[in-house]
Amino acid sequence: MVYQQTIEVGTRGRGTTDLTDEVAHIVRDAKISTGIAHVFVKHTSCSVTITENADPSVRRDLEMLAKRWAPDGDPAYQHDDEGEDDMAAHARTLLAGTSVTVPVAAGALALGTWQGIYLWEHRTSSHRRRIVVTVIG
Amino acid sequence: MVYQQTIEVGTRGRGTTDLTDEVAHIVRDAKISTGIAHVFVKHTSCSVTITENADPSVRRDLEMLAKRWAPDGDPAYQHDDEGEDDMAAHARTLLAGTSVTVPVAAGALALGTWQGIYLWEHRTSSHRRRIVVTVIG
Amino acid sequence: MVYQQTIEVGTRGRGTTDLTDEVAHIVRDAKISTGIAHVFVKHTSCSVTITENADPSVRRDLEMLAKRWAPDGDPAYQHDDEGEDDMAAHARTLLAGTSVTVPVAAGALALGTWQGIYLWEHRTSSHRRRIVVTVIG
Repeated sequence: MVYQQTIEVGTRGRGTTDLTDEVAHIVRDAKISTGIAHVFVKHTSCSVTITENADPSVRRDLEMLAKRWAPDGDPAYQHDDEGEDDMAAHARTLLAGTSVTVPVAAGALALGTWQGIYLWEHRTSSHRRRIVVTVIG
Repeated sequence: MVYQQTIEVGTRGRGTTDLTDEVAHIVRDAKISTGIAHVFVKHTSCSVTITENADPSVRRDLEMLAKRWAPDGDPAYQHDDEGEDDMAAHARTLLAGTSVTVPVAAGALALGTWQGIYLWEHRTSSHRRRIVVTVIG
Repeated sequence: MVYQQTIEVGTRGRGTTDLTDEVAHIVRDAKISTGIAHVFVKHTSCSVTITENADPSVRRDLEMLAKRWAPDGDPAYQHDDEGEDDMAAHARTLLAGTSVTVPVAAGALALGTWQGIYLWEHRTSSHRRRIVVTVIG
């Protein structure tokens, strides 16, 4: 069985948006008891990632490390058509990925207690992001 | 067809544990001839990753690079509730991931000759880690 | 339903090869209307990754950042059996991954407009690379 739904999420520039409840809801709607849920962004300057859901300072520290890894406006970049955060945003998707896959068990997302699914906007300005959730089992 | 099994693995602090044989066994039990196997950790301070299986020095070098990328006790971290390795461990999961997906062919894991599946403990102390293996085909 | 095909791609040393059309063709052959496509390399020194498909300078900048992250011939490496790019290549797979999973919708790859699927060769010499594409839905 397969169930697929595309959602749109508005971001307010760089930072994370918790998608866990929305993905969990889609998984329940899928009525698939055992399988996997795949969450994919159709963009190259934001990520879907799984990280700690209890202390927001974890996500602030990841933001700091992502900046170290790919600084905005690094003079070594050739690609800067859309500004100082353009290439940095593409580089962050290499680090943080474009999709996550999570097991489904007993008809629900089988995340660990401290795991959340986040949309991570890498651009500094607001964007509408399309996310495809596919549940298979 | 879907087959799912949850296993528990004890770690002895930072380092890798080879999961390849255990996952291969689960795939054989699944009796699914063609498909994928998804291996997922339900934690935010350890990873499942695929890397070279022949020379242990590869995994030592990856450990060294992971330390460079997210040093223990970095003064820039805000999150340090559980000690110097706490935020470093979360950061390493961004780099090394939370799950891997491997093709299944002829009823077996279709890994390359030099590929192994490893649980990578990022905390410095021992932990019990729960891993969900889902085979679909 | 499941459809699986293994392809071989020749690389000319470090750099990216666009696999998007070939994977899209396999997905059409699969005749699966809704699901996911998993693209996996059976090697530990090259990656499959999704990135921006319009401006080649994005991929040159990713190459530059990958070199910073894991320099060739870093004196801290223990593993150097096959030369200065040996350990660097393994390390780049930690960053860039071994597989990607993309949704399938209306019988086609559901990539965003600017997303391409690339084989990223991390070794400096030419190689033949085996890639397993599995479509499930």
